[in-house]
Amino acid sequence: MKFNPVTPEIAATLAGIVGQEHVIMPASEDDMQRYTHDETEDLRYVPEIVLKPANADEISRIMQVCQLNNIPVTPRGAGTGLSGGALPVHKGVVLSTERLNRILDIDERNLQATVEPGVITQVFQEAVIAKGLFYPPDPSSRGSCFLGGNLSESSGGPRAVKYGVTKDYVLNMEVVLPSGEITWTGANVLKYATGYNLTQLMVGSEGTLGIITKIVFKLIPFPPQNLVMLVPFRKEEEACAAVSKIFMAGMVPSALEFMEREAIEWGLRYLQQHMTIPEDVQAHLLVELDGNDMDLLYKDAERVYEVLEQFDIGEILIADNEKQKEELWRLRRCVGHAVKSNSVYKEEDTVVPRAELPVLLKGVKEIGARYNFKSVCYGHAGDGNLHINIVKGHMSDDDWNNKLPEGIKEIFRLCVSLGGTISGEHGIGLVQRPYIDIALNEVQLRLMRGIKELFDPKGILNPGKIF
Amino acid sequence: MKFNPVTPEIAATLAGIVGQEHVIMPASEDDMQRYTHDETEDLRYVPEIVLKPANADEISRIMQVCQLNNIPVTPRGAGTGLSGGALPVHKGVVLSTERLNRILDIDERNLQATVEPGVITQVFQEAVIAKGLFYPPDPSSRGSCFLGGNLSESSGGPRAVKYGVTKDYVLNMEVVLPSGEITWTGANVLKYATGYNLTQLMVGSEGTLGIITKIVFKLIPFPPQNLVMLVPFRKEEEACAAVSKIFMAGMVPSALEFMEREAIEWGLRYLQQHMTIPEDVQAHLLVELDGNDMDLLYKDAERVYEVLEQFDIGEILIADNEKQKEELWRLRRCVGHAVKSNSVYKEEDTVVPRAELPVLLKGVKEIGARYNFKSVCYGHAGDGNLHINIVKGHMSDDDWNNKLPEGIKEIFRLCVSLGGTISGEHGIGLVQRPYIDIALNEVQLRLMRGIKELFDPKGILNPGKIF
Repeated sequence: MKFNPVTPEIAATLAGIVGQEHVIMPASEDDMQRYTHDETEDLRYVPEIVLKPANADEISRIMQVCQLNNIPVTPRGAGTGLSGGALPVHKGVVLSTERLNRILDIDERNLQATVEPGVITQVFQEAVIAKGLFYPPDPSSRGSCFLGGNLSESSGGPRAVKYGVTKDYVLNMEVVLPSGEITWTGANVLKYATGYNLTQLMVGSEGTLGIITKIVFKLIPFPPQNLVMLVPFRKEEEACAAVSKIFMAGMVPSALEFMEREAIEWGLRYLQQHMTIPEDVQAHLLVELDGNDMDLLYKDAERVYEVLEQFDIGEILIADNEKQKEELWRLRRCVGHAVKSNSVYKEEDTVVPRAELPVLLKGVKEIGARYNFKSVCYGHAGDGNLHINIVKGHMSDDDWNNKLPEGIKEIFRLCVSLGGTISGEHGIGLVQRPYIDIALNEVQLRLMRGIKELFDPKGILNPGKIF
Repeated sequence: MKFNPVTPEIAATLAGIVGQEHVIMPASEDDMQRYTHDETEDLRYVPEIVLKPANADEISRIMQVCQLNNIPVTPRGAGTGLSGGALPVHKGVVLSTERLNRILDIDERNLQATVEPGVITQVFQEAVIAKGLFYPPDPSSRGSCFLGGNLSESSGGPRAVKYGVTKDYVLNMEVVLPSGEITWTGANVLKYATGYNLTQLMVGSEGTLGIITKIVFKLIPFPPQNLVMLVPFRKEEEACAAVSKIFMAGMVPSALEFMEREAIEWGLRYLQQHMTIPEDVQAHLLVELDGNDMDLLYKDAERVYEVLEQFDIGEILIADNEKQKEELWRLRRCVGHAVKSNSVYKEEDTVVPRAELPVLLKGVKEIGARYNFKSVCYGHAGDGNLHINIVKGHMSDDDWNNKLPEGIKEIFRLCVSLGGTISGEHGIGLVQRPYIDIALNEVQLRLMRGIKELFDPKGILNPGKIF
C-alpha cells in the first residue's frame, strides 16, 4: 500500500475541522506517546497526527480529506486492545473517539440506550444499573475500555456465557464510512429482516469498514442477586471437564471462569494478597450465579455442587457478600495484567466448543513442552474461550521471535481441528494476522477482502489489520 | 436481467447430477404445482425445472452448471415464507432442500447440534427436548417450516422476546456459493472475533448470497416448567402499553403476544372453538413465563399481575395444565391462517421499539380508516413486532391494487419514524421490495447491492428478491 504523508497543508485542514486544541502533532509531542501503543505486547507505532473530533460530522470531513489525499486513518478507542488493532502501522492519522463520550439516552420505556463510542464500558454499566437495567458485556478492561472498541472487537467478558457478547446487545449503529458518508446500519428493533445485516457486519470488523459514531444497545432488567463460588480442583483437566457437566445438568451460570494454579498465584502476587492454596490444587473455577431470588440461587448452588462433587475438588469458597465477591472478581480480572507486569509475553485468545477445553489445555501444555515455552492459562471456560499467556521467561530472543510462532501455529491448528478458531474476543488486528489462514480458507478470505474493498476502495481505514 | 432458458441439454445435465427421480419437469407436471407458490398471498410463479439434490456436492455442481449457462436458481425450503422469497419469478431452477433433512448430530457435551437445512423446525425442537435441551426459535409455521428457511428470513416467533431469534442460535453454516464453492462461514464456537461475520451476513439474506447446506446451532438447557395467561384488556392500546410495563418491572416473559379482539374471533371461528369474550374486551395479551421452578413461576405471575392490574383488564385465564396451554397456543398460532382462509389478504410484518406499539397500532387503524381498509393485528408484542393482516373484504380490485400500496407506504413510514423497520421476521422477498427504500437509504442499498455482487456476480441466485 502506498499512502501519502500528512503535509503541513493537510494538517492545517484537519486542524481546521477539529480545532487546534484537539490535535496532537508533531510526533515528538509528549502527549503523542499514549497514542503510539495499546495493550498488545510492547508494540509502538508513531502516527503523524492525532485528531480528536467531537462528532460524526467532523469525522466525516476528516475522512473526506484523507480519502482525497490517500492518508491512512487508524480509529482508536481507549487503547486497551490486545491484538494491536489501534496501532497506526502505516503512520498517518490516529482518530481518537475519546471526545464522543456521551450517554445520549437511556430509554427505560423501550429498554434501549443510545451512546457515543467513547463511553467507558463500566460508566455505561453503572448508569443503566442506576435505573434498574442491565448491560451485561463486561470485558476485563471494563474500567477503561470504550464501548466502541468493544463493538469493533466483538468483546465478551465473563458474563457472555449466560448473556452473550457485545454483538448480542447492539441493535443499530451510526457509522462514518471511509467515503465520509454517514449512515445508520439498521433500526432500533429487536428483530430485523430488512436486507443484509450491516449491523453485524460492522461488529467485529476492527475499525476497518467504518467508524462507529453512535450505538443503540438493548438492555435487559437487572438481576439484583448473585453469588460467587471459587472451586479448587486437584486436576486442571477436571476443572475444564466440569464446565460442560454444569451445563449438561441444566444450569446456566452467569460466569464460569477457569484459572490454572499459576494464574491465581500471579494474581495474588500482583494484588499483594494472601490466600492459602493447598499444594495439590492445580486449578480453580470461579462460578457466578445470578437471578432475582436469593433462595433460588442457593438451590441452584446446591445443584452446581452436586455436579462438582463428582470431581476431585477441594473446599469451595462461597462468596455471598459484596466485599468477598469483589475480591474474587478483582483477582480474576487482574490475571492478564499480573502476567504482563512480570514478563515479556504474548496473549493468545483461543476458543473451542466448551467440552473440548480439556483437550485444548492439554495440547497447549504439550506444545509448550516441545517448543520450550511457559504458558499461564485462564479465561472464560463457560464459552470455551481460553486465554493463553505465553511468558518469555528465559527463552532466548531468537527462540521467542523465530521458534515460538511455529508453536503458536500448532496451538491455533489444534483449536481449528477441535471446531474452534484463533480469536474469541480480542480480534485479529495486527498480531494475529500472520495466522489468519489457519482459521480462514481462501473463499472466506476472498469474500472478506471483497467486503473491505466495497466499503473502503482506497484501503485508507485501519490498513494493515486482519488481512 | 437476461437469463437463459433451461434447454433439454441443460435439463439432462442437471438430472444427471441429482438423478432423474429427483427432478420435476416439464412445468405441466402435477407435482410441479406445490413449487409454484409459498404462503404469500395467492402468488404463483412456475419454474422450468425443480431439482431436489441430496447434498452440498450436488448443489455445488448444479450451481456451476447454472452459473455457466446463466440460469436463475431459486432456493426453496418448505415454502412457508410470507414475503415470496421462494418464488421463481425469473423461472429457471427451483432448488428444493427437502432431501437435506437429517439431524446429523446432537452434541450433548457441547450443547450444539448440526443439522441439514431441510429439517422441520418442530422435528428438531422435539429431538433436542428429548435430550433435555432447548432450541427456542418457534415461528408459527414450526410444524412445517424448515430450519434453512428460518435462517434465510431470520425468523423469530413468540419466544424471541426472552430467547432471541434464529440468528442468535446459529454458530456456523456450510454454504454453497453461486460459484459452486463450498465453505463454512465461521467456527463452532460461542464467541468469534476472527474476521468479518460471514455467518450473520448469510442469516436473513433470503437465499440471495448462498445456499445453506449445514447448520451448527447452539442449544441451551430446557426449562421444564411454564405457565400461560390470557389477559383481556378493555382498551387495545392499554394491552400494548402493558407490554413495556412488564419489562420495566423487571420481568422477562418467555412470550408476550398481542391479539386484537378480531384476531381471537377469527381464530376461534377457524378452530370451531367457543370462548365467551365479554363485549367490552378489545384485545388480549398471551403471557408465558418459563423456568426451572414452578413455585418461582407463580411468584413471577403475581408480579406480572401487579403490573397488569394497573390497567383496565378483565378476568385473567391462567393455564397451567398442558391441554389448556396447548389450546391457547393453538389459538394464537392459527390467527394468520384463520384470516387467510377467509379473505384475500396481505400480511405486513412491522416492527418498532416495543413501547411505541400503541402509537403504531393507533396509526394503522387511522391509516386504514383513511384508505378504507380493514386490518386484523396480532403478533409478538414483546418484541414490538406487529403482524398486520390487511383483508380485502369489500374493497374494489382497483383500490386493492392501486390505492392500498399508498396506505402500506404510510404504515411503513410510520414504523421507520418510530425507530422501527418494515420487516421483523418475514423478510423483504418479492412483495416488500417496492417499499425497501422507505427503510433503507441510498448508502445502505449501495453497500447491500455491492455485497450481492461480490457473492453473486452474475446475479443468478434468487434474482428479483430484496432489491
